Amino acid sequence: MSEDVIKTDMVIIGAGPVGLFAVFEAGLLGLKCHLVDNLDKIGGQCAELYPEKPIFDIPAIPRCTGQELVDGLMEQCKPFEPVFHLNQQAESIERLDDGSWRLVTSEGTVLEAPAIVVAAGAGSFVPRRIPLPGAETYENSSLFYAVRKMEQFRGKHILVAGGGDSALDWVLSLQPLAASMTLVHRRDDFRAAPDSVEKMRRLVAEGQMRLVIGQITALAGRDAQLESVDIKTAAGGQEEVDCDTLLAFYGLKMELGPIASWGLNLDRNLIEVETEAFETNVPGIFAIGDICTYPGKLKLILSGFHEAALMCQKAFKLCRPDEKLVFRYTTSSTDLQKKLGVI
Amino acid sequence: MSEDVIKTDMVIIGAGPVGLFAVFEAGLLGLKCHLVDNLDKIGGQCAELYPEKPIFDIPAIPRCTGQELVDGLMEQCKPFEPVFHLNQQAESIERLDDGSWRLVTSEGTVLEAPAIVVAAGAGSFVPRRIPLPGAETYENSSLFYAVRKMEQFRGKHILVAGGGDSALDWVLSLQPLAASMTLVHRRDDFRAAPDSVEKMRRLVAEGQMRLVIGQITALAGRDAQLESVDIKTAAGGQEEVDCDTLLAFYGLKMELGPIASWGLNLDRNLIEVETEAFETNVPGIFAIGDICTYPGKLKLILSGFHEAALMCQKAFKLCRPDEKLVFRYTTSSTDLQKKLGVI
Repeated sequence: MSEDVIKTDMVIIGAGPVGLFAVFEAGLLGLKCHLVDNLDKIGGQCAELYPEKPIFDIPAIPRCTGQELVDGLMEQCKPFEPVFHLNQQAESIERLDDGSWRLVTSEGTVLEAPAIVVAAGAGSFVPRRIPLPGAETYENSSLFYAVRKMEQFRGKHILVAGGGDSALDWVLSLQPLAASMTLVHRRDDFRAAPDSVEKMRRLVAEGQMRLVIGQITALAGRDAQLESVDIKTAAGGQEEVDCDTLLAFYGLKMELGPIASWGLNLDRNLIEVETEAFETNVPGIFAIGDICTYPGKLKLILSGFHEAALMCQKAFKLCRPDEKLVFRYTTSSTDLQKKLGVI
Repeated sequence: MSEDVIKTDMVIIGAGPVGLFAVFEAGLLGLKCHLVDNLDKIGGQCAELYPEKPIFDIPAIPRCTGQELVDGLMEQCKPFEPVFHLNQQAESIERLDDGSWRLVTSEGTVLEAPAIVVAAGAGSFVPRRIPLPGAETYENSSLFYAVRKMEQFRGKHILVAGGGDSALDWVLSLQPLAASMTLVHRRDDFRAAPDSVEKMRRLVAEGQMRLVIGQITALAGRDAQLESVDIKTAAGGQEEVDCDTLLAFYGLKMELGPIASWGLNLDRNLIEVETEAFETNVPGIFAIGDICTYPGKLKLILSGFHEAALMCQKAFKLCRPDEKLVFRYTTSSTDLQKKLGVI
């Protein structure tokens, strides 16, 4: 944890397409941005969920993939030198005496700025947790939803739960290190790559691992150390599997996370904003892109771009209260063209 | 003039970038569009004023020219087969018994549709006229603001007024045909290409044409036939120039045109809209892009794109009152991908 305070103009929560375009629009007005994202890479849902999938409704771009869209936006905002704080979640927020905000992330990064912009898409991607009471007591000691270091699992009796690529990939990667390996999935049908499924079945046939078709019904253990797991089998029976490590890969889900407790007016999981500057009910905190809602709102990337542009006008007033904002066009302003580095 | 009535879903006034993107968004919802534009080509200001000039603020497109932007939008909306009515102005509008609209253009094209969308940018481009009382009596008989056919001016005593490229180009093109050629400009300094200015000065030096520095103060003639023009010279004198043809090139200006009389709430030359569907005070008439205004409005092309998308949701309800609108993404909907012809 570092207690060095980073001061900037705008902190943007979410490094997806809309957050990136906000960097560009802020940059045109001379504002600097830091971005915080829970993912380990830039690009949000576009890069995480559909990097290869074509998008057809970005204006004037008849077809591009999610990754190409992100690449274009990165190139566009590059002259304004955004700073990214990845792999961390915006956690707490506090208003300072001068009216600006202090934001602290899950990694202890401390950012201070007059404007906070929530551009968090559908929220943070977090793993779906095992829906059993008490499961959280084992979390990060013997129950895991991600693998950071494989070596940590050497010599363990591992139970992997899930039927997708993550589950199968980790079964195959960790089986050679593990003391024992069991895969549990609710049905004998896998969403993973056929090649991985076939490899897994071969290991089962060779007696190098077990496959149990059924659902976890209870976890047993003591002092955060898992000892066994009860499984209700698809065949109708009950089975107890001894294990000291449970890796569950039930996919990712979206949640608003700590932002939900910041006092912003919410409509279900969406943040209510006005449509002049997309400011929330809390002055100085804006919300743009899929996470905001207002009458007529459509969850289109192009709407997030528009919201980013209008938001920056108001954010400028907060960041530069003594300066007059002059609206200029990139086509005709040599000042903007210098900022963009094109002349 | 044709009295054939064309029935469609949406009539878009203005074939600029925002009008073109409205065709795309309407197309995704299954709506067909006809577009009316006063210019002789597609693309609005982008194509007319800066086809070669780079634009830097279209999201995810770090740099494109006005023409490239228009080309991209044309490709994108092509699957929806927009129909263009160029070289004509939307003139009158009338509500029909079934609640839809009948629009008639200056060329007599008659279009009927439930939704009218004004996407007219800064309005229609029209030539700046000579600010003298009575000038309009000579218009199109001996006073012209554009050259359609050069042959019409053979053997004429021509006075060209103006100091830009249009004025100089027509001086050079028409001088060989004319009985006499005079150029009048308010000061001895030209905004035209240096090469054209030099050619003109050579003709003056050779005695093949005259250059008068000064301002036109009066037109004289009878029965719409100009006979002479009074000029107050920059030197302080007065000169009468005999001529039977006056060509004035004082540049283009924008004006709202007949739309101003449609009963729409205006704020100066802009049309007031709400921000849920960008509908005007007159139900069924929408305004998007630079021509509309609302709190926070920025005249950015990208805002027009957003406005087009939201407008189409409401327009759909007018065009298909009995159908349910299902919001789909181009990335995931095979139905939309079929419409786009990409699968």
